[in-house]
Order: sequence, then C-alpha cells, then structure tokens
Amino acid sequence: MKKLNTSPLSGMQELTPAAQAVFNQLKENIRGVYHHHGFLEIETPLIDRTEILLAKAGGDTEKQVYLVSKPAEAADEANQALRFDHTVPLARYVVEHENDLTFPFKVTQIGRNFRGERAQAGRYREFYQCDVDIVGRGSLPVAYDADAIATIYEALKTLNLPEMLIRISNRKVLAGFIESLGLSKKTSEISDVIDHAEKVPAEKTADSLHWIGLTDEQVEKVVAFTQISGTFAEVEPRLAQLGADNDTFREGVAELQTVYELLAAQGLGDNAVIDLLIVRGLDYYTGTVFETIIPEHRKIGSICSGGRYEDLATNFTEQKLPGVGGSIGLTRLFYILNEYQLLGTEIGKPLDKVIVPLSASEYAYAFEVAAELRANGEAVDVNLTLDKKLGDRLTYASRIARAAIVIGDREASERRYEIKEFQN
Amino acid sequence: MKKLNTSPLSGMQELTPAAQAVFNQLKENIRGVYHHHGFLEIETPLIDRTEILLAKAGGDTEKQVYLVSKPAEAADEANQALRFDHTVPLARYVVEHENDLTFPFKVTQIGRNFRGERAQAGRYREFYQCDVDIVGRGSLPVAYDADAIATIYEALKTLNLPEMLIRISNRKVLAGFIESLGLSKKTSEISDVIDHAEKVPAEKTADSLHWIGLTDEQVEKVVAFTQISGTFAEVEPRLAQLGADNDTFREGVAELQTVYELLAAQGLGDNAVIDLLIVRGLDYYTGTVFETIIPEHRKIGSICSGGRYEDLATNFTEQKLPGVGGSIGLTRLFYILNEYQLLGTEIGKPLDKVIVPLSASEYAYAFEVAAELRANGEAVDVNLTLDKKLGDRLTYASRIARAAIVIGDREASERRYEIKEFQN
Repeated sequence: MKKLNTSPLSGMQELTPAAQAVFNQLKENIRGVYHHHGFLEIETPLIDRTEILLAKAGGDTEKQVYLVSKPAEAADEANQALRFDHTVPLARYVVEHENDLTFPFKVTQIGRNFRGERAQAGRYREFYQCDVDIVGRGSLPVAYDADAIATIYEALKTLNLPEMLIRISNRKVLAGFIESLGLSKKTSEISDVIDHAEKVPAEKTADSLHWIGLTDEQVEKVVAFTQISGTFAEVEPRLAQLGADNDTFREGVAELQTVYELLAAQGLGDNAVIDLLIVRGLDYYTGTVFETIIPEHRKIGSICSGGRYEDLATNFTEQKLPGVGGSIGLTRLFYILNEYQLLGTEIGKPLDKVIVPLSASEYAYAFEVAAELRANGEAVDVNLTLDKKLGDRLTYASRIARAAIVIGDREASERRYEIKEFQN
Repeated sequence: MKKLNTSPLSGMQELTPAAQAVFNQLKENIRGVYHHHGFLEIETPLIDRTEILLAKAGGDTEKQVYLVSKPAEAADEANQALRFDHTVPLARYVVEHENDLTFPFKVTQIGRNFRGERAQAGRYREFYQCDVDIVGRGSLPVAYDADAIATIYEALKTLNLPEMLIRISNRKVLAGFIESLGLSKKTSEISDVIDHAEKVPAEKTADSLHWIGLTDEQVEKVVAFTQISGTFAEVEPRLAQLGADNDTFREGVAELQTVYELLAAQGLGDNAVIDLLIVRGLDYYTGTVFETIIPEHRKIGSICSGGRYEDLATNFTEQKLPGVGGSIGLTRLFYILNEYQLLGTEIGKPLDKVIVPLSASEYAYAFEVAAELRANGEAVDVNLTLDKKLGDRLTYASRIARAAIVIGDREASERRYEIKEFQN
C-alpha cells in the first residue's frame, strides 16, 4: 500500500507515543534537577555558521558534520551547518551575550545535536544531550567542579537506575605525575594508554608503555598510579608515595581534595570515588575529569561524563572563560537502558482516562466531566466515534488510557459516572 | 576582543536566559493543555528524506527548504533535508507506524521547523510550532474538528492574552455556494479574493470579482456571503437566503452547526463565531477552517489557525487518512506578543534563591539549606566565589534570583538563616 519508503533515516530516533512519553519524562526530570540546582536554560539555534562550528574541530568532527545548503531566499548568508554538540554554540553565545550574562554563568542546554557517525545499533546521528556548564569570566573556583558533578548525579538519580558511582580524577595530577617521571613530552601517549587500560589486559597496558619507550621502573610506577582509587583519605598517602613533587601535581591533588570533600558535604561521599584510571579523551580537559558508571553493569561503560576546561572560547575571543561541565547523552542512554531492561519507569499508557459518550446527547455531560478531570491534572480524551461499536471504542480506550468512563443517558441525566479501570 | 562574528545567523531566535525561561513556560503551558486533552506527543527527526519532504511541495516550499549534505560516514543514505513543518513528517510517521497506533490518532508535535524565508523582523527561519492533529483511518467524525479547535483555544488561554475570538468557516459551504452560482470552475480565484477581502477596501474586492468575470448580481451575492457572521442561530437564516441548494453546501452547513454547537457545549460559545470571510490558504483544507484573533488587536492577524483535510498521506499510501489539525507558531507569536507588550507573563528572575556562604566552613550548612529548598521545588544556586567581595556576590544574586540567603558562621552554628528579598 505504501508508495514511498516511509522509514526514518538511519541513526534517527523515532518512538511510539508510549515510549516517547517515558523518554520525555526522563528529559523533564533531568531538566527539573538542573533548574533546581540554579542552572539557567538557554537554547542556541540548531543551524550555525560553519566557521564557528568548525573553528576548533578537526578529524572526526569535520567528517561527521552535517552541512546545510542555503535556500534561495537566504543565499546572502554565511555558510551553515548543524551543531554537533552544545559546547561550541555555548562558547559563541557567551561571547555574543557576555554583557547580558551574570558570571559565574550556570547554564544548561537540552536539545538535539547531529553527527553523521557510522551507523550501528545504539549509535544515533540525531541525539539529545542534556548539558550543564558553569563558565567563569577570568577565573572560576574549583568548588564549581563539585557543583557540576553533584547536579549531574542528582539528575541521573531521577532516572531510577541501579546504584551509580562517580569516578573522579584530575588532569593536573596526571600531568604532574608524568612530569615527575621526566616524561612530559610523552604526556599525550601515556594518557592515551591509561585511558584505554580498563578495556585491555594488564600485560597489554605494560606492553604499550614499554613500546612508548618507558623503562621497567617507569612502567611499574605508571601501573601503580592507575591502581590508585578510593576516598580522598584513602588515596592521599598513596599519592604521597608517588614522589611527584611539583606544582602541577600539588595543585591537582588539592583540587581533587576540594572536589571530593564538597561532594561528601552534599551527601555523595558513598557514591563518589577518586580513580586515577579516569582520563576522558585527550585535548580538551585541563583539571577535574569525571564519569559515572553503574557498577552492577560495568559493561555499559560511562553513562555520563565531563570535566574542567581552561578556556571555553579561545577561538572566538581574547577574554578568558574557564569552565566546567558535563553531559548526559539521553538518546543513547535511553537505548541502553531499554536494552539492559534498566528503565526504572515503565512504558505504560500515555493517558489517564477516555470518556465514551454513547450518543451526541451525552456530549455536554461528557465534556463537563472531562473538564473537571483535566482541572485535576488528568490527561483525558473524549471519544467521539459514535459510528463505531461500543466494544471497539473501549478497545481504543484500553490501548491508550488506564481507565474508561462510559456515559449513557442514565449517567448524563443522573450526573454520575463509574470509572472502569483497565487491567493492563 | 572578538576574533569571529559570534552573532546567530539571521532568522534564528536566541534569547537571554530570563526571556528563554518565559518562552519555555509558554511552551510547557501549551504542551500541558494538549496532554490534558488527550493528545499523544511524538517527535519526528529534524532531518528527513528529501523525497518524503518534497513529495507534495512546490513553489515557495522548494525554494525555502534547507537541504542537508550527507557527512562522509553517512554517504550511503538517501538525500536529506530539514523538515519545514510537522505535517509531512506526521504523514510519514502515521504510514510507517500505522499498526502500532490507535485511531483516531490524537497527536501533538512541539518542536523546531526550518524555512529559509526572506529575512524580515518577526519572521524566523528556525521556529517552534506547537501542533495538534487528529487522524482517522478511513473516516473521522466532524465532531473532532471541534475537539481540535477547543484544545488549541484552551492552550492559547494559558498565554494570558487579551480576549480571543475563534473565527470558523467551512470550505464545503464556500464551494457549495460558488457551485450554486454556476462558478465552480472559478472556485480557486473567488476563494482567493475572499481570503484577501479583509485586508483591502470593499470596492477593491468587488473590482477583483468583476475582473475574474463575475456579473454584478454574482458580485453582490459573493459580497453578501462574506458578510455573514455570528452564532449558528444568527447565520442559519442568512445561509438559507443564499439559495444555495446542493449537497456540498448542505453538508458544509451541517458541519458548521456541529462544530459550533460542540464548541458551545464546551463553554466556548462566546469566544467562537462563524465567519464566512475565513478561507485559510487554498489547496489543503477541505472542510472546517478556523483562525484565532485578538479583537482588540486585529492588526496582529491570526495567532493560530488550522482546519480539516481529507487525506493526510495521499502521496505515501493508498490508505485514506482524513484529519483535522492546527498549529501555534510560538516563535513568531512570542515576538509579536513582546512587540505589542501583550506578554501576560513577566520576564523576571529565573531563579528563586541564591545562597551565599561567607567561607568554606559554611558550605555544609549552605548545601543542606539548598537541598531543603530544592526539595520544596525551588530553584536554588549556592554561590561559591569566595574570592569575590560580598557586595559583588549579592549583586550577582540580585541579577538572577528573587532572594538571597547569606550564611556566615553564626547562621551555620545556630542553624538558622534569614531570607533577603530583592526589590526587583
């Protein structure tokens, strides 16, 4: 019967109304927590100047960006593309509106981004991200790193997942440690090996470090470094034993302490752990880095991550704008939670009630009942298909609502009704 | 200081956080009414197959559509473009998911669409539309036309606008009337003149009708037709006087009566008027058509419109899918309401409170107070810029929140605090 291919394009999420209702609920829960924690919501255009979007990007991003053609009537405009994350448009926004903003600027963006990644299950080309960022003008106290982490953790809690664990490290601790080994020139290669250490056998990690040119003793020290994890009190003596005695290292340890203690002060001591295995990519973060996992399901990997960056908008302005932020990739997370049957919210009926008047004479009373129920916050449909059999109308009701109310002439004249709850 | 042009592209809405909060509130109010009236929310991808999007389109739409290039890793996919309305993706969605849906399918889509229109004030190239549609399989009772109209009206009411008026007509009444004049072949030209009649002097309308080739008597009758407005009881005798005696006309009048009476049954009798001047475009609607105006500000024109269409997805499937729908163009409406100072919701402070601990020793108590207030639904920031002066920190607070709470050592040790309300 179809005349054209009506499937959505590959990599696009398209849900049934019932699943969409759950997805939206999760999104609103996250938005609510971000708002309650004092983050101001902004929306940046989905289409932006290519020059802005690709000012810093390279490699994969340039291959994955969706360029947009200018329609005939907008031909005078600059070259355009779809945003691939919230960070670049945020940088542009902060520079453009700097004088209208209040710093530290605690900001959230929740919306769709676009990346033409290779198609595979659970990877989306159009996907929701729920970001928080805190941007300072000139400087930003490290205490805000804990604010961002605690907010994202509280947001994730609303998804009713199994117990989660926030793993925290600090790039300065890593860089200072590598510096103490006299290996600063190899910081990026060593970081890369540590970043992958969790996914490969221990011998493989040692091999890679040897291959980079580390001595046995250096390899041993790096491996010891990656095994440091625990509360700050637990890791403090082990950090001291590393013998890294430079400003970068000391600054990193002090930041780790501040972040950990502020999380503990917000009741997250049991859910946060310092873990020096955490690196989070290579060239973006400069201090705190974190990710969140579900220990019962380590295979899933990080469900959310972020960190501190020294300068948000270095390509757009001379003004220094340090910040810290994190992102929940909701479209991918929703897919994973479904796959692992970890969705704490059941995909149920999207409506509360369907009212079924038996004839047009009962419409007035049916509308009255609907208005009352709606005023109480219920989602109510009045079914108007008088040409259908009652049985079919109740089947319709049972598919989309938790209950039905049949209104016949007796109900209308006596102004009373019964609620028929559906079993499932 | 800027290194690049950081303004958003022309035609893109970009708001301050305070204005964004109001915009989002309006959007959520609309979403809430749609939900309470039993409409199920779906989201279709912003990117879709060009073949689908332009299956029916022509003229302006093709000139205004944003084509999207396929990134290298998605090169195998079909040609793609950004959606320019919600109706075409809805048609694709209904055909694709027909077996998972329940009919009549009451559906809402709220999101951004894209049209590269010529740039001018108040016209957006990226804009929010808040649509409701009711789609039947095979048939759909005309009573649903009233359901769609009443829902949209209730949604608009949440914007706290001045008194609104819904103007309703029916394409079958118009077509039947023209048929009765023996002018069926000129239906589209005559409809076009009526559609513009309100914006030009009466002589101009008569001139245009003469120019099309109507006799003086026919012109007089058409002008009389366009002057018919009022409650159904008021217009009924005047419709009879037109002497249009054919099935199309009778069917249209019966539909008008049903729609008007069902709106009256929902308490909207005083806010709805039958008005035969209403045509709403040319080739899409086939029965009921409506628009909503603010009579005190007629110059604004229609703030929302819609109508009945005979077949949603005629280009995609053999299955007949009649429907009725309407749309609130929120980005444009928000701009107009601001221009006319009709925004019922004040652009205020986005947060409830900022807590200002005077030193790190007060963090624990500050977090405790914040958690309590957040649990009560308040939006609360804990300011952590200990390096700033108290005065500057309070200025920060006064810019984004309605009140501040300063926590010093006494407040922390005595576990009590005072709320300092800001004047504006």
